[in-house]
Amino acid sequence: MDYQLPQRDIAFLLDEVLDLDRTLALPGYEHCDKDTFFAVVDAINGFVRDNLATCNEAGDNPGARLVDGQVYAAPGFGDAYKVFCEDGWNALALEEEYGGQQLPFVLHAALREGMAGTNLAFALIHELNFGVVEALMAYGSDEQKIVYCQQLTSGNWAGTMNLTEPHCGTDLGLIRTKAVRNDDGYYAITGNKIFITWGDHDMSENVAHLILARVEGAQPGPSGLSLFLAPKYMLDADHNTTNEQNTITIARIENKMGIHGSPTCAISFEGTKAWLVGEEGKGLAAMFVMMNAARLSVGLQGLGVAEAAVQTATSYAHERLQGRADREPMNPMGPADPLIAHADVRRRLLTAQGELDAARAMAYYSAGLLDAAHRANTPEQRKEADARLSLLTPVVKSYLSDMGSRMANEAVQMHGGHGFIKDYGVEQLVRDVRITAIYEGTNAVQARDLVMRKVRGDNGAVVKGLIADMLDEAGHLGEDLSDVESNLRDAASRLGRTTDWVLSTAQGDVLSGACDYLEIVALSVSAWMSARIARAAKVAGGSQSPEYYADRIDAARAFMSRALPRAVSHEMIMQAGEPGVVFRANRCL
Amino acid sequence: MDYQLPQRDIAFLLDEVLDLDRTLALPGYEHCDKDTFFAVVDAINGFVRDNLATCNEAGDNPGARLVDGQVYAAPGFGDAYKVFCEDGWNALALEEEYGGQQLPFVLHAALREGMAGTNLAFALIHELNFGVVEALMAYGSDEQKIVYCQQLTSGNWAGTMNLTEPHCGTDLGLIRTKAVRNDDGYYAITGNKIFITWGDHDMSENVAHLILARVEGAQPGPSGLSLFLAPKYMLDADHNTTNEQNTITIARIENKMGIHGSPTCAISFEGTKAWLVGEEGKGLAAMFVMMNAARLSVGLQGLGVAEAAVQTATSYAHERLQGRADREPMNPMGPADPLIAHADVRRRLLTAQGELDAARAMAYYSAGLLDAAHRANTPEQRKEADARLSLLTPVVKSYLSDMGSRMANEAVQMHGGHGFIKDYGVEQLVRDVRITAIYEGTNAVQARDLVMRKVRGDNGAVVKGLIADMLDEAGHLGEDLSDVESNLRDAASRLGRTTDWVLSTAQGDVLSGACDYLEIVALSVSAWMSARIARAAKVAGGSQSPEYYADRIDAARAFMSRALPRAVSHEMIMQAGEPGVVFRANRCL
Repeated sequence: MDYQLPQRDIAFLLDEVLDLDRTLALPGYEHCDKDTFFAVVDAINGFVRDNLATCNEAGDNPGARLVDGQVYAAPGFGDAYKVFCEDGWNALALEEEYGGQQLPFVLHAALREGMAGTNLAFALIHELNFGVVEALMAYGSDEQKIVYCQQLTSGNWAGTMNLTEPHCGTDLGLIRTKAVRNDDGYYAITGNKIFITWGDHDMSENVAHLILARVEGAQPGPSGLSLFLAPKYMLDADHNTTNEQNTITIARIENKMGIHGSPTCAISFEGTKAWLVGEEGKGLAAMFVMMNAARLSVGLQGLGVAEAAVQTATSYAHERLQGRADREPMNPMGPADPLIAHADVRRRLLTAQGELDAARAMAYYSAGLLDAAHRANTPEQRKEADARLSLLTPVVKSYLSDMGSRMANEAVQMHGGHGFIKDYGVEQLVRDVRITAIYEGTNAVQARDLVMRKVRGDNGAVVKGLIADMLDEAGHLGEDLSDVESNLRDAASRLGRTTDWVLSTAQGDVLSGACDYLEIVALSVSAWMSARIARAAKVAGGSQSPEYYADRIDAARAFMSRALPRAVSHEMIMQAGEPGVVFRANRCL
Repeated sequence: MDYQLPQRDIAFLLDEVLDLDRTLALPGYEHCDKDTFFAVVDAINGFVRDNLATCNEAGDNPGARLVDGQVYAAPGFGDAYKVFCEDGWNALALEEEYGGQQLPFVLHAALREGMAGTNLAFALIHELNFGVVEALMAYGSDEQKIVYCQQLTSGNWAGTMNLTEPHCGTDLGLIRTKAVRNDDGYYAITGNKIFITWGDHDMSENVAHLILARVEGAQPGPSGLSLFLAPKYMLDADHNTTNEQNTITIARIENKMGIHGSPTCAISFEGTKAWLVGEEGKGLAAMFVMMNAARLSVGLQGLGVAEAAVQTATSYAHERLQGRADREPMNPMGPADPLIAHADVRRRLLTAQGELDAARAMAYYSAGLLDAAHRANTPEQRKEADARLSLLTPVVKSYLSDMGSRMANEAVQMHGGHGFIKDYGVEQLVRDVRITAIYEGTNAVQARDLVMRKVRGDNGAVVKGLIADMLDEAGHLGEDLSDVESNLRDAASRLGRTTDWVLSTAQGDVLSGACDYLEIVALSVSAWMSARIARAAKVAGGSQSPEYYADRIDAARAFMSRALPRAVSHEMIMQAGEPGVVFRANRCL
């Protein structure tokens, strides 16, 4: 697989479709002009190709290993991590105060896309480092920030988040891990956590564990949970890592379907020394700071894998000679035509490209909202950006992670039997990306969040703003794109209709239709993005690279005619209502 | 995973929905009455649970191994194969003349479903044994039948089919393997074959390889291909296996995404002694005898895996406690409610059940057509059954193999993070079943076959017969099922409309829409089956097991309201037309 970060697409989207200028003008980004921005995008491509693509296969096999209680990263990962930290990639979007580069989230999105597209297992350690810093910035004490944020920003220490226990994943209110307050200011943590991504490894000097636990005597349920911070190795008085191990045992690495390069640990805390982050009983709120940022990032993971899949499927379709075109042969002197000669193959690739273009636009648009939510000039602007981002976060997480699986499976299918064997690396994409629909809240949990909190929670106000923007765009498309306009208007009215249904229908029915509604929102936003892409490409099309721009319009139209119609079925299915019966198990007996 | 063959469903479908009596009355099945039939179904359940489910995990890991040129089956497979042969399962649907049990294909379907549901990798050796016998029965010489069919029917020898080469899969016309005629009556075969399922192993006394090759001097393309038979170990004058090896080298076992228990071999033939099957230049026709039977069987594989997936997802949804029901709690004294308490979970399981019931009906209906095509009293009856079976074969192959993947992925999703690790065995289902959408002709190749040969080839005559049957059924549903009737009439008119489109539209457009059309046919036939299920359940519902029958009607209605509407989108997308552009590679550069 010869992955290339789609720099041309990223530049087109950010500079010509979305509003990169506005992002770069935000306070705090003064040091990043457009040239710098795209120089970094180019450097991302070099970094991921040279360092992450090269060890992705070793990440799958042999993967990470647990030996005598210590996790060893897969071959090549340690070297890659060294470059990753030394060249400042880990620090890209983190704040200058703690040694970060403080570059925009839209640029961070490109890094995340490129890392996921070349080595999803490796990419996850960055997510954890980043997430722990985010949580500490929001809830940590000044001392915690000074001690930990600098080390986590440089990557000298790595981060983890410890939520799940064997009996509870989604339902964190069931957490049993206990924390006992000690007179010396620390807490002793005891309990068993599972599914801890990069829960241990030998790539960083220390590991900082964020742990959700219940202080002895706290009430049951979510409101009894507190957040703690525990280092793998204890620190000395100057906050330097010592050789003294905290009482943290890595019980096993899980044997998983994919991302074998990312050690998923079961961890036993046995009187582990830990320090409270924020206030007792406010642990879940702090965790959700991480979680929300992570959800957007999971969408970018799906996007990265989808891009890698479409690239390899496209290459294979051009190279593999099999059968003859139904019309004039493409390779008349050769033994057969390339796969791309077949109408069905073209249809698949063009549809995939249309979905991918729109999805990338949605993802980078959301990353831009994150920039604005953090840094826009006025509280009103920040609040508005945050509200729309909150609406889109579950959509981006679910739709793009599912798209990652879909496109990876399409790439396997394009390769035929060769896709099912390991030689081309496409089956690894399927196995690796499968987790993205599950972690950070399953996609069904996202759909529930969407309908209950993000739509019913504000009586549809934010969705309605989105619909207004879609209609505004429709008014700008002009005669040449009148077909696109008509598709977009259809999408907007469907989104309006279905949102009204979500707002006015009994909760059980709405929850039954939540996943279908999420797809409708995703397809509607994609339609909006496709229209914006088509208009921008039309405007630019007369200038350089007319082929590139013509392709964008073709892809946008393919989205409209070959992907958007799925929303019609989702609208029908959404309204089927809550199943009244609890369907019986043991049907076979 | 605690798999049970869905005997109750199979009995209901065959005895109350489809027409088992008519199948059992066919000439040649006199020895199988209904009691015998269902006693065998029960025995299938025992066999697969005791012998195949038990070694499925070992099949995945460590799987089959190649040591010094000899393939060794996965642990437990050899013992399972012994029981499989000794108890006559391999011989179940093969003809009495060569030691077979000559039981109906609808019973064979249950065996195939149960084998695939417990151990897909193992199931494949049976497919090969069966397919080689079928090809020899159709095209072999009397001597070949006497020598090989008996041994392959008992399972004492095993079969393989050697088609694919590194440069050609779908496009068999490109085959390069050479056959040189020898004065002693045999041919010397030289060439490299890949993707040979169960290409070698240590479970049977000998292996009979069917090989597609080109006789020296034959014309290029498909019409230059001939079929050959070569044993792994040479036979003596009495046709007994000797120790002398034929010149067949197992170059490697492929490292695959799944079905690790099925050794997929790369085989080098180096002057291998082989005997012609049928006539020179007629090899492809003989291979297609195997292939067509195999395609129906691949559908049954998808069905078996889908059933296993739904069973395990259903069990987990009842056991796993997580969150509270949105309405009254189901487990008020416990820490949380089971997953099944959540509307979205019920929706998923009920939809899956509706799709599965309809798909099983479609598969067994098709198997019944195979019985009729072989054994019906008049040539007209046989021809009619064969024509409808030919129409449905690509549909069953594609739709059910895709459903296998879909349901396996749903089961992973239902298990959350626990589905992504190996402990529950559900991720193995995803990896194992993935190949079914590829082998025996990719699903896109099936769609092409459907529109070009099966629909345009007879100007839609067979589809129109199907539509007439759907409308006839609609007329019998009565007032209680008037909603089902209305769904069925919609489906019938959509099938009519889209078939007219396939018949009247330019070939490039039809080929672009072929996969969508196939889905429409599959959903239409499923709607027909759902209606028949609902009506039969309504009739029986007053008697015993009213809950069972009520569930069937619920599931049928779930199919109509939650699965069938997908056809609406497919109809729109189908008509998007042939992409005019050859989408450019190297988009990123």
